[in-house]
Amino acid sequence: MEGKEEDVRLGANKYPERQPIGTSAQGDKDYKEDPPAPLFEPGELTSWSFYRAGIAEFMATFLFLYITVLTVMGVVKSPTKCSTVGIQGIAWAFGGMIFALVYCTAGISGGHINPACLGAICGAAVVKGFEKSQYEVLGGGANSVNPGYTKGDGLGAEIVGTFVLVYTVFSATDAKRSARDSHVPILAPLPIGFAVFLVHLATIPITGTGINPARSLGAAIIYNKAHAWDDHWIFWVGPFTGAALAALYHQVVIRAIPFKSK
Amino acid sequence: MEGKEEDVRLGANKYPERQPIGTSAQGDKDYKEDPPAPLFEPGELTSWSFYRAGIAEFMATFLFLYITVLTVMGVVKSPTKCSTVGIQGIAWAFGGMIFALVYCTAGISGGHINPACLGAICGAAVVKGFEKSQYEVLGGGANSVNPGYTKGDGLGAEIVGTFVLVYTVFSATDAKRSARDSHVPILAPLPIGFAVFLVHLATIPITGTGINPARSLGAAIIYNKAHAWDDHWIFWVGPFTGAALAALYHQVVIRAIPFKSK
Amino acid sequence: MEGKEEDVRLGANKYPERQPIGTSAQGDKDYKEDPPAPLFEPGELTSWSFYRAGIAEFMATFLFLYITVLTVMGVVKSPTKCSTVGIQGIAWAFGGMIFALVYCTAGISGGHINPACLGAICGAAVVKGFEKSQYEVLGGGANSVNPGYTKGDGLGAEIVGTFVLVYTVFSATDAKRSARDSHVPILAPLPIGFAVFLVHLATIPITGTGINPARSLGAAIIYNKAHAWDDHWIFWVGPFTGAALAALYHQVVIRAIPFKSK
Amino acid sequence: MEGKEEDVRLGANKYPERQPIGTSAQGDKDYKEDPPAPLFEPGELTSWSFYRAGIAEFMATFLFLYITVLTVMGVVKSPTKCSTVGIQGIAWAFGGMIFALVYCTAGISGGHINPACLGAICGAAVVKGFEKSQYEVLGGGANSVNPGYTKGDGLGAEIVGTFVLVYTVFSATDAKRSARDSHVPILAPLPIGFAVFLVHLATIPITGTGINPARSLGAAIIYNKAHAWDDHWIFWVGPFTGAALAALYHQVVIRAIPFKSK
Repeated sequence: MEGKEEDVRLGANKYPERQPIGTSAQGDKDYKEDPPAPLFEPGELTSWSFYRAGIAEFMATFLFLYITVLTVMGVVKSPTKCSTVGIQGIAWAFGGMIFALVYCTAGISGGHINPACLGAICGAAVVKGFEKSQYEVLGGGANSVNPGYTKGDGLGAEIVGTFVLVYTVFSATDAKRSARDSHVPILAPLPIGFAVFLVHLATIPITGTGINPARSLGAAIIYNKAHAWDDHWIFWVGPFTGAALAALYHQVVIRAIPFKSK
Repeated sequence: MEGKEEDVRLGANKYPERQPIGTSAQGDKDYKEDPPAPLFEPGELTSWSFYRAGIAEFMATFLFLYITVLTVMGVVKSPTKCSTVGIQGIAWAFGGMIFALVYCTAGISGGHINPACLGAICGAAVVKGFEKSQYEVLGGGANSVNPGYTKGDGLGAEIVGTFVLVYTVFSATDAKRSARDSHVPILAPLPIGFAVFLVHLATIPITGTGINPARSLGAAIIYNKAHAWDDHWIFWVGPFTGAALAALYHQVVIRAIPFKSK
Repeated sequence: MEGKEEDVRLGANKYPERQPIGTSAQGDKDYKEDPPAPLFEPGELTSWSFYRAGIAEFMATFLFLYITVLTVMGVVKSPTKCSTVGIQGIAWAFGGMIFALVYCTAGISGGHINPACLGAICGAAVVKGFEKSQYEVLGGGANSVNPGYTKGDGLGAEIVGTFVLVYTVFSATDAKRSARDSHVPILAPLPIGFAVFLVHLATIPITGTGINPARSLGAAIIYNKAHAWDDHWIFWVGPFTGAALAALYHQVVIRAIPFKSK
Repeated sequence: MEGKEEDVRLGANKYPERQPIGTSAQGDKDYKEDPPAPLFEPGELTSWSFYRAGIAEFMATFLFLYITVLTVMGVVKSPTKCSTVGIQGIAWAFGGMIFALVYCTAGISGGHINPACLGAICGAAVVKGFEKSQYEVLGGGANSVNPGYTKGDGLGAEIVGTFVLVYTVFSATDAKRSARDSHVPILAPLPIGFAVFLVHLATIPITGTGINPARSLGAAIIYNKAHAWDDHWIFWVGPFTGAALAALYHQVVIRAIPFKSK
């Protein structure tokens, strides 16, 4: 990570001015690719920051499932949705939590939220504690393909939905853009949260919207009914496929890595 | 583009302080107009950035139609709107996508989203794939003038609505203001997205809100019913007229170009 | 507390980075009041900026009434509000337009929006053109005190509501804070727009929410029914009283001007 | 102004870089803990700033209760929530007011809003003046545990809800992060307001959402019915427990104070 930071600082020195948005990105050839960082370094195990990142991710995922599944419960419980925050309120809960949590944990653990499945299970479990027998009657916030849609529809919705999210994450946190456009990192948690909100607006009717395997797994384990488990693979295959496509898009089209000579 | 950047940097050096909002813009005579840039330069054809901008616009328009038309489908499908994200949710989908996409693509392709009609057709087609026969029953997110309004009302709504959007875009990205008020480019995608949201709040009951020929054309081609095609000219004449008026307003009133001596 | 201020300034030298919010604003005596500006200077009449500010205010007020009154019409027209953007959508229309317009016109004309009554009349008139006979049946977006509330309630709601708005405007644009906290002017249009949104959430059931004489007058002139005119004084006396109280609060309590020696 | 501005510019020269979000926080050993500040200094009593902070907190809490309880009244009054801003509108009122008030009062009094109970009582009293006999029929915006939930559920919801808020406040205003990530203080009022909004989305069905003893006490005193007083302890024990846990989490996990050698 050391090397990357140096690059960013150099970039800031060379182009300190703010560019108006809308200027084209042509010709930033002097930005150098970092060598890939190793996935794991043994020295990390003795560093408090390593454990802190793990605890911070657990806490963030716990709070994410707690707030969102509780919001879902409040809405589905009511026969007429008018006396609840509504389906749109569910979309705000997911998007808003991602905004707040990325904002709060970005500097601590990178704000991934995604892989910390233990936190997700605990968050859904606390909601089940509040809701008791109603939790299972009401679906427990678990993802599955809704009637009227095929499993292919659900898989497609998860792929494109995750693509929208990861595409936004890459665009909003690209180190090269950060160096050039100072407005990018300042607002980054906002478009990322909005992307989650928007995908929920669109795909709640199809799958309840997963686009996050930890969220889907946590709710599925606590809900634990066959019909949720039957569709569960969709909420792993979909997000991983969508994220891979977004990564590919970003590396090939936006950063043009295959077209660059060493 | 070179020259423009130089101006911006000079401006930043001369007036480095942030002005409180509400100060009047009088007397910025030392800001120099750039010579108009050529629409097209042959050298661009050999640059990856040129193709990248095209692909990025395709992708952005694809995702825009995908999310928004799918949201529209989810709402119109329900007999009582209370169990959906509601008409307001549709307005958030359009405005939020523009916010996120302008934020993500501004540095790559200028964030126009507008002219890339092929992406719009593909985005609507994927939604049709999910919704099958329901897609056509439910109107397919295509724009047309709603009962109770004349075609003149619809045209007027599209003209003023596009004016609101383009007026906001010009205000938020004006290079002269960017040089002076550092808060302008930082937040620019936010008021632009909000402008789209606000026009939808106001004119969904009249035309479903076009203010973007690519969006209207993409939905019309995939929906492909006579009543959408009958009104389709409105969603080209309206936006182009509104955008031209906003450009005229910005050049004549705000930048006062006709009143300046060379 | 002298020492603390000194700290703050020293702090700026030692840690020139942005200060955490929540630092106290005590004792910044070295900030000098500007001499009051003359209300009008004859030289202004020959400056294009003077006319430009007037035209920009006309346009902003026109667009404000156009979008908001049209949104109101769309909602009140529907027997069941569920198939509209809802009352909350009206609150977003008012707050969002103020956000966008303050953002867009702050550098041109100060973003007052308020006094430009001619634009308000024209904006409401265009909506009446779209809605025809329905415009009058549906109340035309004019402000009046709703059944179940006294005129005193309505006046109180307008006074406190305007206080909330003007209190936010003063806080967000205070030149002294702008110099100290760089985050203040960057976000200023956002809390101002939110203040308008919030007052609408609270007082739409009482008066429809005026807190802006231009908005109330424009709608009243185009609607032109006795019951709107009967209550109309409330939408001038209330806002002016609330604004005066907020100005008094800001000068006496926040800036402590009476307690300062020359 | 001159001197201060110079400071700002110098700062910008020394640390020009912005870091992309997502960089890890390891190894900021050169940040020094401040010695703890005394809770109260006798000299403060002769300073206008001391009284100003008190008045500013009174005013902020007054406006907070006024806007939010009035919004609650408008929603509960309607037999069908569709013709109101809805339960989601209530969540926006609470979250939005916190956003606006933190933004406006952070530099004056620290933006606590919380402890100024006199303002809360007055704010609720003005709403009761508007609503008259309906105020008591409709619950007066007072917090209590809703049917279908145990007192333990209510207490748990208040603890975790307050944890979410205080966790966000600590993350967003941490002086160490502010020094490192310039985007943190700029946006701080936004995630804090969003945290309040999100907790309301989730826990309005359980307790009406307190997470603020001043808000709960103000409404309880003006409403003054036995069933609100019976549960009232929950809205003190819950918030204090949640806030203490969040403080513990921040000191132990995030700042790792127990693990640091002097």
